[in-house]
Amino acid sequence: MQWNMNAPSHPSERILLGPGPSPVPARVLQAMAAPTLGHLDPEYLAIMDETRERLRQVFQTSNDLTMAVSGTGSAGMEACVVNLIEPGDEAIVCINGVFGGRMKDVMERSGATVHAIEVPWGETFPEEMICKALEQHPKAKVLGIVHAETSTGAHQSLEGLSQHVHDAGALLLVDCVTSLGGLPVEIDAWGIDAAYSGTQKCLSCPPGLAPVTFSPRAVEKMNQRQSKVQSWYLDMSMLSSYWGEERVYHHTAPINMTYALREALKIVMEEGLDRRVARHRASHERLRSGLEAMGLSYIPNDSLTTLNAIRVPDGVDEAKVRRGLLEDYGIEIGAGLGPFKGKAWRIGLMGHGSTTRHVDLVLTALQQHLS
Amino acid sequence: MQWNMNAPSHPSERILLGPGPSPVPARVLQAMAAPTLGHLDPEYLAIMDETRERLRQVFQTSNDLTMAVSGTGSAGMEACVVNLIEPGDEAIVCINGVFGGRMKDVMERSGATVHAIEVPWGETFPEEMICKALEQHPKAKVLGIVHAETSTGAHQSLEGLSQHVHDAGALLLVDCVTSLGGLPVEIDAWGIDAAYSGTQKCLSCPPGLAPVTFSPRAVEKMNQRQSKVQSWYLDMSMLSSYWGEERVYHHTAPINMTYALREALKIVMEEGLDRRVARHRASHERLRSGLEAMGLSYIPNDSLTTLNAIRVPDGVDEAKVRRGLLEDYGIEIGAGLGPFKGKAWRIGLMGHGSTTRHVDLVLTALQQHLS
Repeated sequence: MQWNMNAPSHPSERILLGPGPSPVPARVLQAMAAPTLGHLDPEYLAIMDETRERLRQVFQTSNDLTMAVSGTGSAGMEACVVNLIEPGDEAIVCINGVFGGRMKDVMERSGATVHAIEVPWGETFPEEMICKALEQHPKAKVLGIVHAETSTGAHQSLEGLSQHVHDAGALLLVDCVTSLGGLPVEIDAWGIDAAYSGTQKCLSCPPGLAPVTFSPRAVEKMNQRQSKVQSWYLDMSMLSSYWGEERVYHHTAPINMTYALREALKIVMEEGLDRRVARHRASHERLRSGLEAMGLSYIPNDSLTTLNAIRVPDGVDEAKVRRGLLEDYGIEIGAGLGPFKGKAWRIGLMGHGSTTRHVDLVLTALQQHLS
Repeated sequence: MQWNMNAPSHPSERILLGPGPSPVPARVLQAMAAPTLGHLDPEYLAIMDETRERLRQVFQTSNDLTMAVSGTGSAGMEACVVNLIEPGDEAIVCINGVFGGRMKDVMERSGATVHAIEVPWGETFPEEMICKALEQHPKAKVLGIVHAETSTGAHQSLEGLSQHVHDAGALLLVDCVTSLGGLPVEIDAWGIDAAYSGTQKCLSCPPGLAPVTFSPRAVEKMNQRQSKVQSWYLDMSMLSSYWGEERVYHHTAPINMTYALREALKIVMEEGLDRRVARHRASHERLRSGLEAMGLSYIPNDSLTTLNAIRVPDGVDEAKVRRGLLEDYGIEIGAGLGPFKGKAWRIGLMGHGSTTRHVDLVLTALQQHLS
């Protein structure tokens, strides 16, 4: 019997300023370590109810079908796609980074014919371009778009979009993994029909659950399905019977993760969404000023406040800088993905990590390692 | 803003003697509450390596493709099925309870033509019956069977089975959700090609991960697939690149859940598999003697040691007894499902819950509520 002796018995206390996970408040870690209840215990059912009510608040929705899927953010994406799409459906996906590309892949695996529209990584989609795609593909049942593209830091505007999508007879599906809890995500006001997120970004909860919400329009399409949802695990018709009043056993929910999410959402509500959004903006602006004063520049035209994608200066070994930050400061920042590999750093200021002290520390650390 | 005020701010300390989750040791809860690392942090990658090595030990396998899927046990079932099955494949499923039935459903959603063989709930499958099914369906690519049927408490013998399955050109897929860590699960010695489990049963870890393992023979079938796996989230070809040496980003693993599983597996190894199995047997026998002395009887002919399915005596309101146990003792036991609804109690003695003190307490509590 030979253990890998390199694994630490106690994980180090990192400062998580990458693309996620974000720093988790002690309160949330403590809530997670509470005694495990049974998944049908009346106390646990009440905790589920409270959690979904808080999710409705952070999603700014009255959607009945709002819950946390028992998997990470990508399971949330898959849950939305497999429930909305039936084999043979047409769909439009907007791709400007990793996560739009992933949505296309997931849709195709669900049997959809996918029409992709693309802009270069780092850019966002103008309304006209989306309208044109809707015109060209009048049979599209779903249009998928990423609100906060974690791979590029680009911030896609969504206001006004649903009108065009609905006029074309389609549903609007939105990835808000890196925006929920840090940027406004107004599900009802913006007319979004389905959205998914993760817990480990701006909600500052460990990864393991995926908040999702579906509008009545989306539920109507799901109710009219001719075929079973291809995923048993992610079938919302069964999940909603477990999370709903019937309490029909489906699977064993990740009970302690629900405790953590409930506490993380409580912290969001205590701060208030408006103040939280303003804090994310202030931290972002402070970071941006500092980085630009050092001669560094942002990749996207319209940057997220939650994730900052920076160009690596010519001649700098980006991996060496990241390693230095991790070793000297215990700070994690992210590398570039795909076409940005070796060319970008991604600095996340999400949830509990979006503070003056985190901003100033990462600026100091970068200064040390770039000079 | 109106919270559901019935949700407890701190969950009660239950004694979990139902069909799962089982009681979680304090060490595991504490390990889970350690600071969150990044999912690509070198420390976390080492923890993943150690976790999969410990999973190989508890599965008694040298299978390279052994890991924890980022979902609960049913996600493990779906991961095995969607990777092994291609649309149009034939499969045989042995149904003697809820979980065989679920496997059939998951296989059909994956595009398989499923031949189900059935015995009454509570019974197990004789070898001849399985051999006959293999003869009748010579094109079957997979035979699925449940080792420990959580809905009935029946213990299916698996020794010798793989020879027949392999001779027929099929793969043997086994559900060992309620056996792994409590009963022998000898993946290599028994020739099992794919198996899944959950963390919240005999491993005594909170729910949220699904240990899975695939034999080289199963990997060969997966490598020869003509079509993409229908689930992106559960696609083993991508998951193995994340868990393997390449460390290709796929999704953000449930990091703190991995800490918990690593610690739970360490506890299993400290005790030793043989001693652990013997402890589960001793607790079961002590419970059985006590129950039979009270005039209660077991439903299955060959009972699991980890889960005890008992007939509710005529004229007893089974829900009232369970409620009494919960209210007076904080003890959770399980109800019957499907045809056993109202007719069975399910008493789990799993992992940390399989001790003399738990057995004697639940016997005392039942005595109080039945007399």
